[in-house]
Amino acid sequence: MNTTALPPIETDCVVIGAGPVGLFQVFQLGLQGLHAQVVDTLPAVGGQCLALYPDKPIYDIPGLPVCTGRELAERLLQQTRPFAPTFHLSQEVAELARQADGRWHLLTSTGTRFLTRTVFIAAGVGAFVARSLRLEGIAAFEGRQVHYQTPAAATLAGQRLLINGADDAAVQTAVEAGRLRQSADANAPRSVTLLHRKDAFEAAPELLAELAALRAADLVRVAVGQAIGLQTHDSAQGLRLTGLQIATADDEELTLPADQVLVFLGLAPRLGPLADWGLAMERKLLPVDPASCGTELPGIFAVGDINHYPGKRKLILCGFHEATMAAFAAAQWLSPNQAPVRLQYTTTSTQLQQRLGVATAPRH
Amino acid sequence: MNTTALPPIETDCVVIGAGPVGLFQVFQLGLQGLHAQVVDTLPAVGGQCLALYPDKPIYDIPGLPVCTGRELAERLLQQTRPFAPTFHLSQEVAELARQADGRWHLLTSTGTRFLTRTVFIAAGVGAFVARSLRLEGIAAFEGRQVHYQTPAAATLAGQRLLINGADDAAVQTAVEAGRLRQSADANAPRSVTLLHRKDAFEAAPELLAELAALRAADLVRVAVGQAIGLQTHDSAQGLRLTGLQIATADDEELTLPADQVLVFLGLAPRLGPLADWGLAMERKLLPVDPASCGTELPGIFAVGDINHYPGKRKLILCGFHEATMAAFAAAQWLSPNQAPVRLQYTTTSTQLQQRLGVATAPRH
Ligand SMILES: Cc1cc2nc3c(=O)[nH]c(=O)nc-3n(C[C@H](O)[C@H](O)[C@H](O)COP(=O)(O)OP(=O)(O)OC[C@H]3O[C@@H](n4cnc5c(N)ncnc54)[C@H](O)[C@@H]3O)c2cc1C
Ligand SMILES: Cc1cc2nc3c(=O)[nH]c(=O)nc-3n(C[C@H](O)[C@H](O)[C@H](O)COP(=O)(O)OP(=O)(O)OC[C@H]3O[C@@H](n4cnc5c(N)ncnc54)[C@H](O)[C@@H]3O)c2cc1C
Repeated sequence: MNTTALPPIETDCVVIGAGPVGLFQVFQLGLQGLHAQVVDTLPAVGGQCLALYPDKPIYDIPGLPVCTGRELAERLLQQTRPFAPTFHLSQEVAELARQADGRWHLLTSTGTRFLTRTVFIAAGVGAFVARSLRLEGIAAFEGRQVHYQTPAAATLAGQRLLINGADDAAVQTAVEAGRLRQSADANAPRSVTLLHRKDAFEAAPELLAELAALRAADLVRVAVGQAIGLQTHDSAQGLRLTGLQIATADDEELTLPADQVLVFLGLAPRLGPLADWGLAMERKLLPVDPASCGTELPGIFAVGDINHYPGKRKLILCGFHEATMAAFAAAQWLSPNQAPVRLQYTTTSTQLQQRLGVATAPRH
Repeated sequence: MNTTALPPIETDCVVIGAGPVGLFQVFQLGLQGLHAQVVDTLPAVGGQCLALYPDKPIYDIPGLPVCTGRELAERLLQQTRPFAPTFHLSQEVAELARQADGRWHLLTSTGTRFLTRTVFIAAGVGAFVARSLRLEGIAAFEGRQVHYQTPAAATLAGQRLLINGADDAAVQTAVEAGRLRQSADANAPRSVTLLHRKDAFEAAPELLAELAALRAADLVRVAVGQAIGLQTHDSAQGLRLTGLQIATADDEELTLPADQVLVFLGLAPRLGPLADWGLAMERKLLPVDPASCGTELPGIFAVGDINHYPGKRKLILCGFHEATMAAFAAAQWLSPNQAPVRLQYTTTSTQLQQRLGVATAPRH
């Protein structure tokens, strides 16, 4: 963890998670006149919708008879625009702790720090991280011979490359490595093997066609099976990974030689550090009062898939309502001496329309 | 009230109110495999959105950065299509009473009857009815000399016509009556006066231009002021209305002669019969358990602006969530011996997609 001592960002609201509910939280805070800082482990906003089903249709968003996960994320992002939220992507909120002055201190995995009066945990089913290859002893090789992101091309030069996965990223990487071999590039790997439990890959048709051509030319090989163990070699230079043990579909075992292993098994959510923040959890969920979506910690709200209350349904539209409850409660919490926060309609309130940047000249 | 003894419609679900929340209730019931009968006093669906602000923009529907009241109503109606709800419009639910077998009997103002196991009260701020002219003694003339809908043309022939209002319907009616005078039609009224508290009308530009032309030709007159009383004449034929007493802007009083008065003062909601159904009400609202939106009466749910629970905000998006809670609770109530109703995603559930009519052939 990089803990560069940049001064913390002082703010009223930090939203943890830029899934559909975190995005609508930003919008509802904006209507309350509050600016939000948003953190997500993913490099783009949209949470599960974008990470797990970007091109699949959703039918139960009210007023949108059909839209894909990606479209919904884009629409929600567009809706937050008037409030110019600040996004801190590709980083995980690692620490959350109360300060003496009652504010909350947050630290992310890349060293971003916040001092904030309210926190909105919209962490969904957890922080999305690359799904790891679970093999005994693999941790020792991660970052050196086992990678979850494509390393610099030079790392692969002359190496026996094993790519595990079947999605777009896996196929793309195999094709690129195959091309390097085809053009006898200096960085070309010695061999390229694509490993998946069946001979079926999900990628754009052109990419699949190119893969087929590279296979026909024996520049890329496909191995069908599942990794079950590591083959290693101990020498004066230390322990080295030399291959993966594979179980084939017919229950045979074989070893695929490998100097470098690239793993593309998709994204998986993990609850991660959230469990250590001193919040009561019930079966990995944060219990809240549904009237405010407040947790038992002052100034900390939880919305969307991560929260729980009687009747809770893990649906996007329920999270929209919860974010609204939390925004009203937070606005009140931030101005405790003020009159109760009034309900205003975006259709008729000049104040809301000014915040939205759509106010027209007053009518006579 | 017309109580034609047609047999009652036997059904699982009746939704009272076709506002945005009633419409989404239909959708959520549809996802649960339940068909809905929907009643509204208005001739079209959309509730407040259509009746009060059809052309004004709403900015806080999640995923719809901006849409008008009418657009929202259309989108929600479209979303209910796969479930083919039955709409019973232009009628008010007048009676709701429990049967010996536990079902609910509903009777509308036009005589439609239902026997249903569940009822969803999505009555908003009340049933929308034409706003009436509140003048002492006026009830005696309603339907004969005072109308809230344009009567048959013959009724107006040779009459001194007074039209009270400033909206599209008022202007349209004045222009049509003026045209009859212009063409010396047999049904032409003797005089046409348009009454409003100021000389400003809200209608399409062409209509306003035609009104101006008819005024210039003295075929339609405009009177500025407010009705404060009736002028009547008692004779052998009974009491007749002969004019309206008007207070002008300068606080003068004058009498406008009138044989027929047409009132177009817009729509106003009234809670109406709902207050007599034996449901506990608190300040004109129905308290519910937010986990189910159930009222204290078995099988009766309340959603949208009409309900109340801790933290309640009268917003459309909150009603969407409430309708979802109610649909899950009702599905369970209707199948009490079944396993708890499962959460399913429209994106992935074949059952939901079959109900939505979007199921594709199974994948291999
Ligand atoms: C295949 C599939 C289909 C679905 N279909 C539907 C459907 O049709 N209708 C429907 O309503 N719902 C559907 N859902 C559920 C819906 O996607 C979720 O309810 C919704 O995404 C929850 O939104 P959220 O914002 O609460 O959480 P998420 O979408 O899970 O987003 C949470 C975000 O928080 C981030 N995060 C978590 N912890 C941290 C941390 N410590 N630091 C930084 N970032 C963090 C994560 O990376 C993630 O981006 C579906 C889900 C799946 C998997
Ligand atoms: C000018 C204005 C601007 C607004 N702007 C916004 C905004 O920007 N965002 C927002 O979220 N909300 C806004 N609202 C509020 C929003 O319109 C309401 O929250 C919403 O309409 C409530 O929906 P509903 O379905 O619960 O009730 P309603 O829309 O009130 O619909 C109830 C329906 O039930 C019918 N009904 C009632 N009783 C009976 C009966 N006994 N028999 C038959 N029919 C019956 C009525 O005729 C009506 O059509 C605004 C409201 C107004 C007036």
